[in-house]
Amino acid sequence: MTRTGISWHVIISRRWSGGLNEGMNRMIQLDLRFAREAFRESELELLEPAVAAADAALRRRQVAGADFLGWLDLASRTLAAGTQALEEAAEAIRSEADVLVVVGIGGSYLGARAAFEFLKPQYYNQLPRSLRGGPELYFAGNHLSARGFRDLLRTLEGKRVYLNVISKSGTTTEPALAFRVLRAWLEQTAGHEAARKQIYVTTDAARGALKHLADVEGYPSFVVPDDVGGRYSVLTPVGLLPLAAIGVDIGQLLQGAAEAEQSLTDPRLAANAAYRYAAVRNVLYRKGLTTELFAYYEPALAYVAEWWKQLFGESEGKDGKGIFPASAGYTTDLHSLGQFVQEGRRNLFETVLRLTEPPCDLAIPSAPQMDDGLEYLAGRPFNWVNDQARLATQMAHASGGVPNLLVELPDMSERSLGQLFYFFELACAMSGQLMGVNAFDQPGVEAYKTNMFALLGKPGYELQQAALRAQLESAVT
Amino acid sequence: MTRTGISWHVIISRRWSGGLNEGMNRMIQLDLRFAREAFRESELELLEPAVAAADAALRRRQVAGADFLGWLDLASRTLAAGTQALEEAAEAIRSEADVLVVVGIGGSYLGARAAFEFLKPQYYNQLPRSLRGGPELYFAGNHLSARGFRDLLRTLEGKRVYLNVISKSGTTTEPALAFRVLRAWLEQTAGHEAARKQIYVTTDAARGALKHLADVEGYPSFVVPDDVGGRYSVLTPVGLLPLAAIGVDIGQLLQGAAEAEQSLTDPRLAANAAYRYAAVRNVLYRKGLTTELFAYYEPALAYVAEWWKQLFGESEGKDGKGIFPASAGYTTDLHSLGQFVQEGRRNLFETVLRLTEPPCDLAIPSAPQMDDGLEYLAGRPFNWVNDQARLATQMAHASGGVPNLLVELPDMSERSLGQLFYFFELACAMSGQLMGVNAFDQPGVEAYKTNMFALLGKPGYELQQAALRAQLESAVT
Repeated sequence: MTRTGISWHVIISRRWSGGLNEGMNRMIQLDLRFAREAFRESELELLEPAVAAADAALRRRQVAGADFLGWLDLASRTLAAGTQALEEAAEAIRSEADVLVVVGIGGSYLGARAAFEFLKPQYYNQLPRSLRGGPELYFAGNHLSARGFRDLLRTLEGKRVYLNVISKSGTTTEPALAFRVLRAWLEQTAGHEAARKQIYVTTDAARGALKHLADVEGYPSFVVPDDVGGRYSVLTPVGLLPLAAIGVDIGQLLQGAAEAEQSLTDPRLAANAAYRYAAVRNVLYRKGLTTELFAYYEPALAYVAEWWKQLFGESEGKDGKGIFPASAGYTTDLHSLGQFVQEGRRNLFETVLRLTEPPCDLAIPSAPQMDDGLEYLAGRPFNWVNDQARLATQMAHASGGVPNLLVELPDMSERSLGQLFYFFELACAMSGQLMGVNAFDQPGVEAYKTNMFALLGKPGYELQQAALRAQLESAVT
Repeated sequence: MTRTGISWHVIISRRWSGGLNEGMNRMIQLDLRFAREAFRESELELLEPAVAAADAALRRRQVAGADFLGWLDLASRTLAAGTQALEEAAEAIRSEADVLVVVGIGGSYLGARAAFEFLKPQYYNQLPRSLRGGPELYFAGNHLSARGFRDLLRTLEGKRVYLNVISKSGTTTEPALAFRVLRAWLEQTAGHEAARKQIYVTTDAARGALKHLADVEGYPSFVVPDDVGGRYSVLTPVGLLPLAAIGVDIGQLLQGAAEAEQSLTDPRLAANAAYRYAAVRNVLYRKGLTTELFAYYEPALAYVAEWWKQLFGESEGKDGKGIFPASAGYTTDLHSLGQFVQEGRRNLFETVLRLTEPPCDLAIPSAPQMDDGLEYLAGRPFNWVNDQARLATQMAHASGGVPNLLVELPDMSERSLGQLFYFFELACAMSGQLMGVNAFDQPGVEAYKTNMFALLGKPGYELQQAALRAQLESAVT
């Protein structure tokens, strides 16, 4: 770090590098001390039978949505089967591409983006290639903004671009339209033959428009399994291929998830942190705490929060039920949402994600002449200050009537992230059972799609279009 | 655009370039047609007296927090006084700096960032200087993450860096610590004398640590006025200096706000869209719709949403009251939060921000061989498709029991953004009156700060520290 000229106050501390035996007791933890005033232990005990029954039903694949339980042992199955084909494709992309553009939306977007921002430096795309260790990475196909396309295409100009198009069906509007634009751009700038080698697809094993196109054009293709829904798919090729292509250790990612699988098999709440999390949030929901604020103290977790919001919001928000999932990046948002959390309407609880050991540290420089009232902190590590802010805030918010759950993750490694993904997936499945919903479908997304196809003039939607037009004309502004 | 090789499907349409007379009827609009089933017109009429009284009290500066009403006519006063000193400083930064780092948090961060992302291209910092028209821009001082500092410092390496440190007092923890780090880095890499010319401060006119330091070191300094609180400060030098430095037309920004000032003086709900917005959300809140989801269809609006969340959340979230402010970027989040919004727990309403005329457009390429079911859209403009998705979604969500307010902004110009800032500021002031809170204070942020200072060992907080330690030791995990 001497090149930066700040060697005197940078301390790199990567004490834990992830040996297997050492790691087994470094599992994700749940700490409820800042939520204790919101419920009695007996309330959890009363949920034990429901949790045990739900666990048994899940493990026997006898719940609503049971066709989508492949994620339950996905990581261990994938490790057993090996990831050689994925690694080889990733290596080809990594060695050839200046830029990888991942085209996907929802579950075909958020998991990879969460892992990318968690594991790679901020401003990754601006780093010299030698520091990046892989191609630049952009995400497309997740909006319909012309301005968004303009800005992306301007950034791709003159670079050797690879695409990874991710869509089970190949007909989802946003990624399909983005693929049209990017493929046309690629064929025009690189030529049809080159483009064929620069396009990778992740899609259905046998059916669908994208699978068919891949077969015709000879695009290398990977499979979105039938038994894993979009929001549970980050550890399938959906997330693994782009992550491996930018140099993420997907073996460690899977290893972490597999360890979580093994450590979260006991259905008793005292022994299963994921189920305990699910049970506590269900208790709080029944008391009227209907919004959960997922808070974190590292900016790199912003998209872990977005992934979490899809997972829980889409799984539970149905039949008029569900905990509304929101997020806050602290300490940033203590200066925006903090006032509301401390003193606003009392229908909130918080789930705080803490990193036990952030990847590097920095000592606070001494500067007595600045007279900023902070000289007492000179020489202290930022991570310690950040964690005291976290502790102070949890105590303040809990005192203000916002129960605070604390999820502790060992560090910012692939392995910890694998644990995190599995922990919340399992917790969400249990939450859905306790909420009394099918946690694996999303019937509500059809309503806007039907309207949209009608308004766009899709053949076959003429009657709906006429009905919508009539409704619009009669509406009073 | 021929250099990009996509001239055949890019259409640049900047039909409206902002002439004053033409612009006066292009004001921000409120459309309630998708919320009509949630309330009767008579419910709004019943609020007219309260709105009229609150308006009179606001205009006479006789509300709680009346010392912080400077924003009411800030834009017109600033235009009358002129912005020459700001423009000159901005020009000096623009011509000399490779990079400008803005150091601030909360209201000293979100307004400038919202305007930056709204007005400048995505990936702005990666564009060649000739396309940027100003220095690269980064935001610091808004977190306590060592990893965040590492990544920023790595990016600044070898560049000519200017700082704009924004803090009324100079003692707010995050920006003060970031200033320590960045000043030390700057003095070490550029030397003390050069650093003095590269640091601009925006602070109190007369008092405080930062003002004192600026006087001692000779840093050029600009004033945070006493009568404008942080979350209303974007049109003071807090926002104007960094924005001018990257080439934003701050005259047009102020012009838009001044036009909104003039067009929103009538207190009657039928004549005042800002008050109508405030009244409708108050009616919905009283019916149990306690969460407002601010939704937008251009990714560039993400930080306008964050600015809005601070404005409303910090103004209203007190005394156990307040509408919880959340946000969603559509169509992206239709694939994550959409299920919940359509069918989850019914305590939501949405406020959708629509851009009548986005800054550029793109035609959907024809690609019948892709067989993606979208060929019927070939040749259609993306903006049209995006807006049909918006309309379809508003109708679907309203049918699902989520009233949808629609705020329409003419375009993505400085002038429209100025309107938007003033519109929501005025609406928020009225909302606070209708909610029965002081919309201009934030007493709740002291609780975590007191705990934090105690845990950090700040001199004078010894008793609080002992109390917190005792509380932590007795807590059951």
